Amino acid sequence: MKTRDRIVQESLTLFNQHGERPITTNHIAAHLGISPGNLYYHFRNKEEIIHQIFRNYQEYMREHLRIPETRVLEPQDLARYLDASFAAMWQYRFLFYDLPGLLSRNQPLQDDYHAFVKHELAPLLAQAFGQFAAIGFLNMAPADIMPLATNAWIIVKFWFPFRQTIRPDTPISEETSKLGVRQVLALLKPYVQPDFAEVFAGIEAQY
Amino acid sequence: MKTRDRIVQESLTLFNQHGERPITTNHIAAHLGISPGNLYYHFRNKEEIIHQIFRNYQEYMREHLRIPETRVLEPQDLARYLDASFAAMWQYRFLFYDLPGLLSRNQPLQDDYHAFVKHELAPLLAQAFGQFAAIGFLNMAPADIMPLATNAWIIVKFWFPFRQTIRPDTPISEETSKLGVRQVLALLKPYVQPDFAEVFAGIEAQY
Repeated sequence: MKTRDRIVQESLTLFNQHGERPITTNHIAAHLGISPGNLYYHFRNKEEIIHQIFRNYQEYMREHLRIPETRVLEPQDLARYLDASFAAMWQYRFLFYDLPGLLSRNQPLQDDYHAFVKHELAPLLAQAFGQFAAIGFLNMAPADIMPLATNAWIIVKFWFPFRQTIRPDTPISEETSKLGVRQVLALLKPYVQPDFAEVFAGIEAQY
Repeated sequence: MKTRDRIVQESLTLFNQHGERPITTNHIAAHLGISPGNLYYHFRNKEEIIHQIFRNYQEYMREHLRIPETRVLEPQDLARYLDASFAAMWQYRFLFYDLPGLLSRNQPLQDDYHAFVKHELAPLLAQAFGQFAAIGFLNMAPADIMPLATNAWIIVKFWFPFRQTIRPDTPISEETSKLGVRQVLALLKPYVQPDFAEVFAGIEAQY
């Protein structure tokens, strides 16, 4: 692996383990067994590393949450989307522990995150929930779609910091994702049309 | 006002404005026009000030979210609870911007927060939602109560950091609370019994 990629990967591991705040570029260099000068050749500072980690998160989301072009969504896509979203939240969890702080200290990251939310994530949510309504899976008035999608978004985005803070004695793990999926399914359950009740119960049974 | 109380109040203002991270005890002392030595007479370090701010938040919550002993809850109590909760989230918003970080750096705060969640907040949520089910306001199976209450909790707790990060160009304000209340009402709407539809619409119209 290239040094640049190793810096990004190991920084992500350290940030997830300890939080981003106490980890300096010197810690990262020492952890990799490279000189600080070598690290600075690739990244001018810690904020640039964080920005690259964000770009990797963004790539992951783009790849896994793309709306298919040649078919409409099916109920099973809901499970796939939830799996992918919680996997991303787990893999990049430090990003969402203090996102207001990270963005306020890093204007280019804030600009990129904002553009991602505005032009990709929010439209994607509207489209996915719109298709789930269109196929008769979820029964929602058009005016209900964005409030519901937004509630799902908040639960996914903050699930790990929520669990971490209410149960500090039970360390979060990838398994915590399943509980998060169940919370989102609980949110959607009242909207499931009777025709799809069995399919939905099948999805619930996966978690 | 006593110096100790002024330190707590002005620290809260500074933390809410700038985040807690860049504010040092020297900033706080300078802002109050007192010497660092005077500040250290009252608080050994910044973490102790944060802990006192948490205790004030806790007092506020206890006072405003107490379940009445002499009557059952009515639908209008839902609006009152949401108003009080969002008011607390606004007034103490910095606490919830990086709560995992604050707790991980401050074991006494973590212990207090955990005890508060376990012995007060979670039981309160269960009781309030249980009473809303018992009076026929919200139609929930017993097994649905905690997942629903937890979703409401997550939305309230993370509403301000959510809005702040998805719309960095629209600064959050007290008005943002109203949008948050609407998100929680959207969450609860499918559970409202027909007999209470009009009362619920009246609550919605308040926001």
